[in-house]
Amino acid sequence: MTTVYITAPPEEAERIARVLVEERLAACVNRIPTTSTYRWDGEIHHDDEVVLLAKTTDTVYAELENRVLEIHPHEVPCIERFDESHALESFAEWRGEVTQPSSGESD
Amino acid sequence: MTTVYITAPPEEAERIARVLVEERLAACVNRIPTTSTYRWDGEIHHDDEVVLLAKTTDTVYAELENRVLEIHPHEVPCIERFDESHALESFAEWRGEVTQPSSGESD
Amino acid sequence: MTTVYITAPPEEAERIARVLVEERLAACVNRIPTTSTYRWDGEIHHDDEVVLLAKTTDTVYAELENRVLEIHPHEVPCIERFDESHALESFAEWRGEVTQPSSGESD
Repeated sequence: MTTVYITAPPEEAERIARVLVEERLAACVNRIPTTSTYRWDGEIHHDDEVVLLAKTTDTVYAELENRVLEIHPHEVPCIERFDESHALESFAEWRGEVTQPSSGESD
Repeated sequence: MTTVYITAPPEEAERIARVLVEERLAACVNRIPTTSTYRWDGEIHHDDEVVLLAKTTDTVYAELENRVLEIHPHEVPCIERFDESHALESFAEWRGEVTQPSSGESD
Repeated sequence: MTTVYITAPPEEAERIARVLVEERLAACVNRIPTTSTYRWDGEIHHDDEVVLLAKTTDTVYAELENRVLEIHPHEVPCIERFDESHALESFAEWRGEVTQPSSGESD
């Protein structure tokens, strides 16, 4: 099972989460407000962002990454894949049932 | 070393964290408020939840998972295991000292 | 690619994040407020802390860990390494460009 770590501007986070769940690319998405410290043009910045933790499966990961790239406002968004070494079996089954590669249609 | 990712309703999170630490199944638990987006009965929901990140060890993981299942209000809770590739040695030692399989008794 | 999970007192978190980015030991750091439950001297405590998620590379990890040890107020801080199984290529490249072992000088 796979958790995808994405950061996005606060005003975009809910839309990205909704698209991933509606299109069955993620079973669920946890959104967490964060402050991001980074360097840009030689200056240190501290921006408000949101971390999205998208719960998905191995088979759907590549499609999820492409879809985030399509709908994310940044050209080089933070999209990282963390593989779980285990997940509660019933929860893993549910994730497999509600995620579907190339589904495209919402319910 | 192992970090266990659990989500729970806000009103249950502190109790779950306290049980895991009291029963020495986790050395410490970080609780983080989150908004969870998921599909249920064909509708997209956005619920307030809490992410619990329980810091434990390999030997205690199975017992921790069972205990969370016992005390969690949901039938199919999100319980995921992430293995750290490294942890500061002194911090890893502390975790090993304060976690104990089948301890049951609090201090 | 590597994400380093650190916890710190709220009043220290921004300084730690700034040092890591200024000294090119992390490309960026996401800071997230948390409540930490743990046992100390036989009592269960619930403290306000901040989780720092430092985005760095394999080559810089050891140096980052040492630097955090130097500037962190705790003797045994939580410093954990999680390795990503994949990251968006362009994002991974950016991380490689802005992090540098033993750089020491800020821009």
